[in-house]
Amino acid sequence: MATIDFWYSIGSTYSYLTVMRLAQMADSSGVAFRWRPFNVRHVMLAQNNVPFKDKPIKSAYMWRDIERRAQKYGLSPRLPAPYPLADLPLANQVALLGSEEGWVEAYTRATYRRWFEEGLLAGEEPNLSASLSEIGLPAERIIDTAKSPRIVEALSAATEEAMALGIFGAPSFVVGGEVFWGDDRLEDAVAWAKR
Amino acid sequence: MATIDFWYSIGSTYSYLTVMRLAQMADSSGVAFRWRPFNVRHVMLAQNNVPFKDKPIKSAYMWRDIERRAQKYGLSPRLPAPYPLADLPLANQVALLGSEEGWVEAYTRATYRRWFEEGLLAGEEPNLSASLSEIGLPAERIIDTAKSPRIVEALSAATEEAMALGIFGAPSFVVGGEVFWGDDRLEDAVAWAKR
Repeated sequence: MATIDFWYSIGSTYSYLTVMRLAQMADSSGVAFRWRPFNVRHVMLAQNNVPFKDKPIKSAYMWRDIERRAQKYGLSPRLPAPYPLADLPLANQVALLGSEEGWVEAYTRATYRRWFEEGLLAGEEPNLSASLSEIGLPAERIIDTAKSPRIVEALSAATEEAMALGIFGAPSFVVGGEVFWGDDRLEDAVAWAKR
Repeated sequence: MATIDFWYSIGSTYSYLTVMRLAQMADSSGVAFRWRPFNVRHVMLAQNNVPFKDKPIKSAYMWRDIERRAQKYGLSPRLPAPYPLADLPLANQVALLGSEEGWVEAYTRATYRRWFEEGLLAGEEPNLSASLSEIGLPAERIIDTAKSPRIVEALSAATEEAMALGIFGAPSFVVGGEVFWGDDRLEDAVAWAKR
């Protein structure tokens, strides 16, 4: 079965769309996705990319664009969601731990739902613990482990790996050396995987 | 008949895709497009948007992305095309004159074809005169008129109009107050126009 690496950061706005529709895409396409959290903010700073928050006109467009696309996918976010994340690394350190332990997708969906549909920032309370509890995990222990040097370093290594692949933003899809950037390239990445 | 304003700058790389497929889209959709040249570089500088040329990793991705999409549309550009344009205003002053006189689409296609398929920068010689001659226009007279204060001001006014609409990049499609940014949003803009 073809596999696509799905590189994302909790903190990326457009990743909401992908996070919420990826299970269905996996089902309908027969393609498997490997969830790869990284620190997109680190990559953007390293590459002279200005984040949305410093571009008010592009930001206003982004929210409207996400709203239109969410509608198309049958999603009902409350927009604009609070932005940006204060603790982007922690949100993604938890995700990275989840990718080791098998609950990364469930956690990411739970935390994005709270962020985009209930207005509670990811990576901090009450979103963080509630999202972990919802999927049956001991929040306190998970958060402690996610803050450990081992996981901090693993997220940093994943971020370096993303940069080495040519990734500069999130979400990105990588298949057979090809990078596809943006939720709107998901269909293209799937088509590429099935060639 | 529904009409979409197609805002673009000769100098925008992704606009190549739109310029080359818009006639077919107009035919198949029954939607009319009004070609609106503006100075995207001016808008980006005003809005803190870093152009591709200053982001090498994103630039490399852009060319590969354009290549994949061009293939999908049956186009055969020679990539990377030379970039950026030295005289972006003049290329678009000519286009603006063309939008007054009815030959904007023919000129824009001719000059993009030379730029993207023959490696000759738009807005300068030999591309400029050859593109005008190809569509049966007296190049010298056209270029003189395009350099006149009236046309310079008209391009500046169009650029202000674009910014007032919330446009921050090219190509953009505007229909019923909705802005759609990027060649990859053309289908969405058409669907919106036909609602």
